[in-house]
Amino acid sequence: MGKRVVVVGGDAAGMSAAAQAKRLKPDLDVVVFERGRHTSYSACGIPYWVAGDVDDVTQLVARTPEEHRRRGLDVRMGTEVVALDPERGEVVARDVGTGSESRVAYDELVLATGARPLRPPVPGIDAPGVHGVQTLDDGEAILDALRSREPRRAVVVGGGYIGVEMAEAMVRRGLEVTVVDMAAEPMSTLDPDMGALVHKAMEGLGIDVRTSTAVREVALDAEGRARAVVTDAGELPADIVVLGTGVRPETRLAQEAGLPLGRFGGVTVDLRMRVCGRENIWAAGDCVESLGLVSGARIHVALGTHANKQGRVIGTNLGGGYATFPGVVGTAVSKVCDLQIARTGLREFECDEVGFSWLTVVVDSTTAAGYHPEAQPITVKLIAERRTGRLLGAQIVGKEGAAKRIDACAVALWNRMTVEEMTALDLGYAPPFSPAWDPVLIAARKAADLVAEDTCR
Amino acid sequence: MGKRVVVVGGDAAGMSAAAQAKRLKPDLDVVVFERGRHTSYSACGIPYWVAGDVDDVTQLVARTPEEHRRRGLDVRMGTEVVALDPERGEVVARDVGTGSESRVAYDELVLATGARPLRPPVPGIDAPGVHGVQTLDDGEAILDALRSREPRRAVVVGGGYIGVEMAEAMVRRGLEVTVVDMAAEPMSTLDPDMGALVHKAMEGLGIDVRTSTAVREVALDAEGRARAVVTDAGELPADIVVLGTGVRPETRLAQEAGLPLGRFGGVTVDLRMRVCGRENIWAAGDCVESLGLVSGARIHVALGTHANKQGRVIGTNLGGGYATFPGVVGTAVSKVCDLQIARTGLREFECDEVGFSWLTVVVDSTTAAGYHPEAQPITVKLIAERRTGRLLGAQIVGKEGAAKRIDACAVALWNRMTVEEMTALDLGYAPPFSPAWDPVLIAARKAADLVAEDTCR
Repeated sequence: MGKRVVVVGGDAAGMSAAAQAKRLKPDLDVVVFERGRHTSYSACGIPYWVAGDVDDVTQLVARTPEEHRRRGLDVRMGTEVVALDPERGEVVARDVGTGSESRVAYDELVLATGARPLRPPVPGIDAPGVHGVQTLDDGEAILDALRSREPRRAVVVGGGYIGVEMAEAMVRRGLEVTVVDMAAEPMSTLDPDMGALVHKAMEGLGIDVRTSTAVREVALDAEGRARAVVTDAGELPADIVVLGTGVRPETRLAQEAGLPLGRFGGVTVDLRMRVCGRENIWAAGDCVESLGLVSGARIHVALGTHANKQGRVIGTNLGGGYATFPGVVGTAVSKVCDLQIARTGLREFECDEVGFSWLTVVVDSTTAAGYHPEAQPITVKLIAERRTGRLLGAQIVGKEGAAKRIDACAVALWNRMTVEEMTALDLGYAPPFSPAWDPVLIAARKAADLVAEDTCR
Repeated sequence: MGKRVVVVGGDAAGMSAAAQAKRLKPDLDVVVFERGRHTSYSACGIPYWVAGDVDDVTQLVARTPEEHRRRGLDVRMGTEVVALDPERGEVVARDVGTGSESRVAYDELVLATGARPLRPPVPGIDAPGVHGVQTLDDGEAILDALRSREPRRAVVVGGGYIGVEMAEAMVRRGLEVTVVDMAAEPMSTLDPDMGALVHKAMEGLGIDVRTSTAVREVALDAEGRARAVVTDAGELPADIVVLGTGVRPETRLAQEAGLPLGRFGGVTVDLRMRVCGRENIWAAGDCVESLGLVSGARIHVALGTHANKQGRVIGTNLGGGYATFPGVVGTAVSKVCDLQIARTGLREFECDEVGFSWLTVVVDSTTAAGYHPEAQPITVKLIAERRTGRLLGAQIVGKEGAAKRIDACAVALWNRMTVEEMTALDLGYAPPFSPAWDPVLIAARKAADLVAEDTCR
């Protein structure tokens, strides 16, 4: 048997690392510890499962522990790593059922401990009837509540990706839905002007959106179950409360072991996803920070697609190859019912933080030729650096056919294109797919003209 | 009054040039000659008009002659330019109605003469009942024929973009449709292996696809109307015949005036769309050749989106600004019913022509997460240069959500990315929009691995 690789966490990042390492170097002894009941599952799929798009939880599981074992991985379910001992090259693993602990030695350690939900620190937040959306068990609990309690009114705390996706799920389940957000507009991963479009569309879907509103307390009924969300602007009755309040890197183990953490609390890794300054410790997924390619700063982006890529990079490196994860430009897409939302790069305030001086354009257009029946509204915002015209960010809100247009902007950002260069991009055109000028091109053209005007001023 | 700009041709390229020049420099005297009855129309929209997606021909007209005139353009309809006289700086214009000719002087000349359909040189091809799909009048003629003659069987000659789009239109009008193509597979803008997928899907739609089949003759009935298409593999009865056999640059005027033409017969222009070697003659749209950014060779691509951009570039330059059209990577999207088709960059045989040694991968995936109900099949093919791994081309065939994924590849080509670099692209991920690995990323990963293996061999 070759070296032993110990992987902490059996979801996207951990299992991708484990599977790729084993595939490339079959003599590796790969041990994966997972405290839960599932491996390789899609947490991002939970809102669609709750909404009824997905029938069975097994569909969200890309590969079961047994399938991983058949590929030669030593997967230990229900086992939580409770401490790291880098000096001795060991981890301390605890059987969640029995509580018994054992030390397991490693040659290479992979941390894929994921993220933990941010819960507002208010009374009642941990009461029954308040649901996170992190794990498949969370999804099951929500579905159980919908079935057994037939709630009528849902309050979703937080208007980010998970918040709006869960709002859609609740609307489609027939509930009256209120979304509460501290920010001035929902979807604060967008600038407020674009978030305002989401706000309006959500209201059009019948969702009650309460912005600039802070949650003070979850009020409980006589049995101790959530009965209302108390905000600084009044009480919102709730038969079920869903938390879409974001996540933080789960790095307690790393911190206790003295591993380097960044300003968002994520593990700091190098290009190959090796923990900075550590020879034989790697980390990937929601527990790490990534290089933001536009800002040059490290950021925390919890997304399954990055977790998969990063895990695979570690696996390739452990398997004797060479692979890197150069960073992210910050692309994300989402939807709430028929409204599609996308963003990449920096928001205005992030540009300010970095020190960029910038200009913006916002363009209303259609996803297909105006005369084509599939034409849907789309709004594209671009942010460009003054003088250089370098693209700094893009945001899109629209209907069918809108969101994935962000990819062209994401590739442009990756390549540090200017908006002037973007005007010449050869994007696909045919009447069912685009106006003769794709909305992204119209926005680039306006941005390029604005940069020129500004320079001459 | 300032200088006089004479524009030959009042469709996308010509009117974009005219309008932009006038906007930037209002004292220009801009005269546009158009031999037809419409300006600024979407020929690409004709199949959707015929299919019934578009109710009225006016919807295909972005701007009427009157609207252009209100913006200060001197638009002369029904007037054909029959000769250029660059030595004297004049054009000869003929009134199509009266036949009277006049000479008009110019300071700057813009050629936007478009393209002419390639008709197979066989007997009967010009008979009544055989329809081109170039102008709005062609579209009107087809609709008239559908209404007045109630044809049952349509034969579409040519299986390219126009061919498949017209096949869809005829299917949706309830006709029995046969598509005849000389190539081994339809959509020869794709490699044959991808064209085969289109072939199969078209058959699934009930379209009879006859490939590797040459048209010998259009057989006529007693009244001299088309009654069948005679091929080298037999006779195909036809109540209506539609030609989707491609186009050639319409450059008779340019040729007679001694302007430089390229190997596809298009006018040769510089970066600013100025005719090479001519100080005051410009050309744009379907009558020019463009620099192919992947091959480095000049190519002919007749597409409204390029015509619009190129025309605007001329207008900006004539208006005292600076703009360029650096070239194209060769992106095109299309659909036949629910099948979406896209391509960018080079096909295999084009790679060979340039001298590239290349590798390909073909990946089957889904447009959304596999468990999401909107997941549709998608096949992505990538072509990469050996050793360098530079992306050379991409082709996509799939259903809803497939085609516009080509844009990410088009931007990657524009930036000369390698498939290895592409594996790290930050493309939008959420279950309704993509699997955790976007199909383009899966293909890039496989291509990168293949390039590495090939290099080590």
